[in-house]
This record gives sequence, C-alpha cells and structure tokens, in this order.
Amino acid sequence: MRTDGVLNILGKLLLLISLFILLPIPVSLIYHDGMTRAFLTSALIGALMGGSLIALFPPNSELGYRDGFAVATFSWLGLAFLGALPFFFSGSFPSFVDCYFESMSGFTTTGSTILSNMEILPRSMLFWRALTHWIGGMGIIVLSLAVLPLLGIGGMQLFQAEMPGPTKERLAPRMQDTARILWGVYVLITFIEIILLMLGGMDLFDASCHAFASLATGGFSTYTASVSEFNSPYIEAVIIFFMFVAGTNFTLHYHALHGRWRVYWQSEEFRFYLTLVAVSSLIIVLANQGRIYQSWLTNIRDAVFQVVSIITTTGFGTADFDKWPALCKILLVALMFIGGCAGSTGGGIKVVRMLLFLKYARLQLRKLVHPNEVNTIKMGNIKVPQEVMLGVLGFLAIYIVFCGLACMAVTAQGVDMITGVTAVIATLNNIGPGLNAVGPVQNFGALPALAKVILIICMLAGRLELYTVVVLLTPDFWKMARRPKLRNFKRLSLSR
Amino acid sequence: MRTDGVLNILGKLLLLISLFILLPIPVSLIYHDGMTRAFLTSALIGALMGGSLIALFPPNSELGYRDGFAVATFSWLGLAFLGALPFFFSGSFPSFVDCYFESMSGFTTTGSTILSNMEILPRSMLFWRALTHWIGGMGIIVLSLAVLPLLGIGGMQLFQAEMPGPTKERLAPRMQDTARILWGVYVLITFIEIILLMLGGMDLFDASCHAFASLATGGFSTYTASVSEFNSPYIEAVIIFFMFVAGTNFTLHYHALHGRWRVYWQSEEFRFYLTLVAVSSLIIVLANQGRIYQSWLTNIRDAVFQVVSIITTTGFGTADFDKWPALCKILLVALMFIGGCAGSTGGGIKVVRMLLFLKYARLQLRKLVHPNEVNTIKMGNIKVPQEVMLGVLGFLAIYIVFCGLACMAVTAQGVDMITGVTAVIATLNNIGPGLNAVGPVQNFGALPALAKVILIICMLAGRLELYTVVVLLTPDFWKMARRPKLRNFKRLSLSR
Repeated sequence: MRTDGVLNILGKLLLLISLFILLPIPVSLIYHDGMTRAFLTSALIGALMGGSLIALFPPNSELGYRDGFAVATFSWLGLAFLGALPFFFSGSFPSFVDCYFESMSGFTTTGSTILSNMEILPRSMLFWRALTHWIGGMGIIVLSLAVLPLLGIGGMQLFQAEMPGPTKERLAPRMQDTARILWGVYVLITFIEIILLMLGGMDLFDASCHAFASLATGGFSTYTASVSEFNSPYIEAVIIFFMFVAGTNFTLHYHALHGRWRVYWQSEEFRFYLTLVAVSSLIIVLANQGRIYQSWLTNIRDAVFQVVSIITTTGFGTADFDKWPALCKILLVALMFIGGCAGSTGGGIKVVRMLLFLKYARLQLRKLVHPNEVNTIKMGNIKVPQEVMLGVLGFLAIYIVFCGLACMAVTAQGVDMITGVTAVIATLNNIGPGLNAVGPVQNFGALPALAKVILIICMLAGRLELYTVVVLLTPDFWKMARRPKLRNFKRLSLSR
Repeated sequence: MRTDGVLNILGKLLLLISLFILLPIPVSLIYHDGMTRAFLTSALIGALMGGSLIALFPPNSELGYRDGFAVATFSWLGLAFLGALPFFFSGSFPSFVDCYFESMSGFTTTGSTILSNMEILPRSMLFWRALTHWIGGMGIIVLSLAVLPLLGIGGMQLFQAEMPGPTKERLAPRMQDTARILWGVYVLITFIEIILLMLGGMDLFDASCHAFASLATGGFSTYTASVSEFNSPYIEAVIIFFMFVAGTNFTLHYHALHGRWRVYWQSEEFRFYLTLVAVSSLIIVLANQGRIYQSWLTNIRDAVFQVVSIITTTGFGTADFDKWPALCKILLVALMFIGGCAGSTGGGIKVVRMLLFLKYARLQLRKLVHPNEVNTIKMGNIKVPQEVMLGVLGFLAIYIVFCGLACMAVTAQGVDMITGVTAVIATLNNIGPGLNAVGPVQNFGALPALAKVILIICMLAGRLELYTVVVLLTPDFWKMARRPKLRNFKRLSLSR
C-alpha cells in the first residue's frame, strides 16, 4: 500500500465534502433555524483536515488497484466523521457516537436513525441528512462500477467489461471517466424525481430530501412517519418507481438514456430482480389480505411499497411490517439479504450473486444425477468463469461468518435476540429499520453505545462489499504497506 | 434407478425392523403395561409389507451407487412408518401425523417430541422411542461412512479412503463390510455407557434408554424433565462424555480400539470440534455467571452439558436455555448449524464442512492481497481437491436455500417467527428442541399438522445430508428411473 498517495486522495476528498457541507446553509437561512454557524464550523474543520493531508503527503501516481481497499475504507470513515460534525454542533444529538452513527448511516445509504422525532430537528439538519445519502450514493456507484470490478471482489469482475470507456491500468483515470458518465445519469434522474414529487404536492425541500433518500436507497425521511406522512398514492407510486430505478444497475440506465432500451430485458439480473419484486409482493398481498388489510388496493399499495423499499435496501416505511404475519416478516428478511442489483445504490448481497448462487445450487444437484457431465453456469449468454463463481461463493462465506460474529457481538451488549439480529441484518445490508426494538416505527437510539459502534462497522463493511473492509483487518495487507513519504521530508532532502 | 432392486432392499429392511419391534415386548411384559398386542400387530404388519415387497420384486445385483439416494430416502420413510405403528396402536398419541412425527424424530435421531408428559406413556413405548434412536444411529453411521462418500455428497469424498476394507464398485458388499466393523464399535460403546449409567444409580431401563438416546445423539428421555430429572453430576458427566463420543467420527473410535489412540489428535476435524466445545462453553459460562447462575460449579456443569448436547445435536436438556442471555442463545443456534463430526451420529452441517468453509473464507481474503499466489486448502496434511471444496460450498448453497424455504413454509401456517425458524433449525439439524413455543421445556405438539409434515421432511432431509432427499425432487433423477420388473411377471414370461 502506498500510504502517502492514499492519504493525499483522502485529503482531496475531505476538501470536496467541506464544500458540500456549505450547501445546507441556504436552507438554514431560508428557514431561520440558526444552524449556519454549525455548518460553517464543520466546513472549516473539514477544509483544515483536508488541506493538512494534502500539504503533508504528496500524490502518488503509482497508486494501484490494491490501494483501492484503503482509499475506499478511509474515505467512508473520513466522510462520516466530517458529516457528523454539523449534527454534533447542532446540539440536537445526545452524543458524538450518535452523530457518527447517523452520519455513517447517511453516507452508507443505510438509513438507520437514532432519532425518535424528525419534526423537532432543524430543517437544514434534515437537509444535510438527506444530502449525506445522495453523496454516499454517488460514491457507491463509482466504487461498485469502476473500482471493485478491477479488484476482483466476489464476482464483480463480471461487470468489468460492461462500462463504456477505456480500461486503463491506473486507478484514478478509470475512476474519473466512470464518475463523469454515471454522475450525469444520477443527477438527471434526481432532478426528474424532484419535479415529479413536487407535482404531487411536496414542497421543494421535502421533494429534494426524499429524492436524495430514494435514489441513494437510503431511507432518511424528513418526517417521523416516513413516507406515510403524505398519505398519497401518487407520491408512493413515484417513490416506488425511483427506488426500483435506484436498485437497478446504473450502467443499464446509461445505455437506456442513449436509446438502447432493450438492455433492461437483456439483463438476466434485471429480469430476476423484477421477478423477485413481483412474486414477493404477490405472496405478501395474499398473506395479508383479510388478516391485516380488508381493502385489496391498500394491501397491494403497502405490499409493493414495502417489498421495493426492502429489496432495494431503502427502508422507507408506509406500514408497520413488524405487525405482519411471520411469513411476510421472514420473506422481507430474506429480501433484506438479497438487496439491489450490482452497480446500483442498493446494498445487500446483490441480486446477481444470489442468482449465481441459486444456479450453482441447481448445478450441484444435476451433478449428482449426471456425475460425468461437464456443466457450466451461464449468465445471460456469457459463460461464468469458475474463478468468478469461486469469488461469489467466497463472498458468501465471508458474509455469513461476519454476520454471525456481528450478531454475537451486538447481543453480547444485552440487546434482545430479534432486535440484535435484525439490527445487524439491517445495517450490514444498508437497509435501515429492523424488527422489534429497531422496527420500522422504532429507532436505534436506545441501543448501548458499543452496540452502535459495532453496527457502524457493519454499515461500513456492508457498503464496501465486505472484502474492502475485512481485508484491512488481515495482517497480510499491512505487511505490504509502505512507509509514507512526507512532502516536507522530501523537500528537506532535496535542499541538502 | 433400478426400482425393483430398491424395493427389494426396502422389503428386507422392513422385515428386519419388524424383528426390532418385538424387542420392547419383554419390557411390556415386565412392567405389565398391556402394550404387547400393539407391538405384535405392528411387527406383523411390517413383516407382511416387507414380505410382499420381497415377493413382488427380485433383488438386482446391478444396484449402483446412484440407487443409494432412493434406498436411503425410502428406507427412512419406511422405517418411520413402521416405527409409528406401535405408537398409533398404543392409543397414547392424538393422531397418526403425531405418531409419524415422533417416529421420524426417533429414526433420524432428532429428538423433537410432540408429547408433553413422558411419565404417562407406557414403559414399553418409552423403550421403543429410545430404540428408534439407536437403530437410526446405526443406520446413519453406515450411510455416512460407506454410502455417502461414494456418492460424492458435499465433500464427504474426503472420507472415502478412511474406512478400512476393500473399496468395491457395488453398493451392497461395501455397505456390509463397513456395517460389520462399525456396528461392533457402536454396540460395545453402548454397553459401556449402560453399565456406567447404572453405576450412577439408574435402573437398567433408564440406563438403556438414555444410552440409546445419547449414542445416537437423539435426545428422547424417559422423563419430561429430561436428564435434569436425575439431578446427578455423575450421570450428567457420563452423558456429556458419551454425547461427545457420539459426535466424533466413528472411524476414529475404530482405530482407537485397535490401539491407535493418536488418531484423535491427528484429526484436524476432531481438534476443531474439541476447540469449539471448549470455547463455546467458556463464553456461555462467562455470560451467565452472576446473571443466571451464582455458583460457578452449577454454571460450568449446565454450560458444558448444553454446549455438548447442542453441538452433537442430541438435544438433552438440563437447563432452560431459552431464559439465557441473547448472546448464549445465538451461540447455541450457531452450534446447532455446525453439528457433529462427519461419520458420527450427530446431525447439522458437520464440523469438517464448517472448517473447510472457514479455510475457504480465509483463502479468499489472502487472494485479494496476493492475487497471483496459488493457494490450496489443506486438511491435516492432505491437500483438499478443488472438486471437494466446490462440493462443500454447493452443500451449503443448497442448505441455505432449503432452510429459507422451510422457514417460510412453516411460518405460513401461522406459527410465530422465532418458533417457526428455530423449529426448522432444530429439525433440519436433527437436534430436538428449538426456542419459544418449541423451547427446551416445551414440545412440538401444538403446531399445525401441515407444519409437522414440513418438519418431518426437514428431519429426513437433514439426516440424509440434504442432497439424498433433494435429488429425488429433481425431474432429472426420475428420467433415469427404469420401470420395475415384477417377480411374477418374469415367471409368467418364463412359462410361456
């Protein structure tokens, strides 16, 4: 690892985020909520931190793909720290751990909150919460489509060739190309959603916040009652559509915007994602009809909203699914693990991995009956190399181990079983609400501080496809780290 | 599949079990519980069924390894049917589904019961319950060490070369060789346990029943309060030891009995199994001390008993672990999945598979740091072929899918979430008790009939290493089935 280059990039990123921290200031001024100073102070601290890192450490043009692990992990840790500062200075949060939890939940597009009442929070803080989602979503699209495939993480190599643009050897140029293209798509779709939500009667503030939260599959709302506050079928329909869009591989949207609409249907992952949403909604509608709902229309509306909200790992609520029958809850928990498509802002294991996993299970059964047949797994028309399949299975292996250890660590803090297990599932898959004490109408505020810290790690690890964070915990990785060169140290040696 | 040969073997097996059904008759006569007729009738029905199958279908000397899937599945289904008959004729069970559940739970060495009060059951019925465990345990040792390795199920090929005796191509001779050797070991250890339990004050009846249940890692007790009825540290220590022995690969015991004691320590699976027991017990002791227990001695005694009882999938109870802290419960649930060693009477995923799984996860992390290094996974001193590793991962894939679907199917019957999920885990891993409504001091009696049927399938699938049962559900398997030849049909054509 080239530590100096990594820290230099981190510095640049902190500077950039300091600029973003200035964005809620107009909101604060319009609504007179007195939060201007909190944002200014935070931006200043961020600029100082970023500036110092850039001043101390020179950029390293030899930054390779392996350094991507450190860049990604430290970036999100740094982002969440800067993002927590405005919350901290606002005085609306009980402790810094809570601020960091909320900020990490924002930047990882998780949407778990420690707040019990949104309405008492200053408007500019609500705006900042939503903005952290949007920035995080931007980051994750580039990370998952430009960086992770090159690192060969858990089968993401499949998408290596999918993005347009030259495949370069160095990390930075490749990232910049992809970022430019995809952020254009991301910004465009965000604008469309804001306008559509405003047509449904939302003001610019609510429309922006909810568009940020849905396109990042985050889930922070400006109301305690989440989307059900509006009680509008139109608004719910718009949000369902854009959550679904956000859970789709953004490469597909890029191609569609260039007139190649058939890419959606050509993508086996997209077809499976659509089928999952349709079948799960149907099962839940049938299970709830007559028990929870008397009206088919309300039933379908709530079921589809909740299924899309959960599978895309957004976590917006319109119904308290903790009261639904156990079958529905288990199905929703299963969807929590599946998550969105690869290359979307959605979290979870990803639809494509689940699909490969199921194909592998089927192949194994076939092998027992026809032991001498040579079988390959296909994805669309492409043969999946065994290396990729091994990567996917390895991802699942690490995922299960990590999830189990996190559950034990959280419940060791005295949290009850359902709360602890679903809190881990909800944060590791970047969803938001769990069940029981962290259920859809509850929040994470009452958990012990150490449990919150573990859940923060879960959010980070889940967001960065696990490997990125876990690999930093292996001694092997650090053995390869080089001692950072300092800028001034270099100059001193030159002056001799 | 050679259907005629399979049915012929099934007939022979039913005849054999009819003889076993006569064994509780002396017990019935000694205790004057009036159950003699129930056993005689059942044995007669079994003999008639078995006789008819043998009369109708000729043996097929060409029976190959693939036919093993059908032989195993139909054998256990048939065993459970015959085993349910005495329960049914006893009049002590509410319905035939309950009898079949209890019988399948016995023969699969699960130990889940639908009975709420053991003390009112006739003594000979209690004896028969325990005997079903013991017979099931015998069956599973041969199946897992002689048949499954040859079928190449989920990494069990690793044990192919471990058993002494010639490796023949046909199914039957290989099974007979292995059966002779291992049953000798099994019977010998059973006798030793009976004697040791009687030294602790148990009468012959209780000692036999508890020895049967612990060596088969079954878990049926003759008392509602299970092993805690005796409240004897000596008896608990004996049972802990023999449960632990039963959860070990019986090949190791065979070698040890021939003076090669070091095999235990040479087995990496055994070392990991021992470590798991020790570490889990320690964690539970530390978590419970001061909260659940004031005395260290009682704490350690209950913790070790429960850990060994759960990891070996026996399911005997001395403490109501449903009242333990969430951490302990999650740890116990994790142990439920791990299960015993391969080639033991224990259920679950098996220690060796978990070990390979963890090694694979670690290898994947190493690959990210050193992408060009060629790494292999070793088990002891043996390199694990990639084919075996793929088999293990495939087993886990099918296991997860099956477990998820079963949970949904059970909760769809209106069972609450924790009860439904832990009922599936407890039966699929052949443990016995779950949590909540099927917790250690509860029973499965109150579940809806359809839920019981699903759990019966779980017990069977779990016991037969999943593949054996699931492969029968694929159309591919049945495409290869040949139309059975009937004996009389053959003779008729000869007489022409």
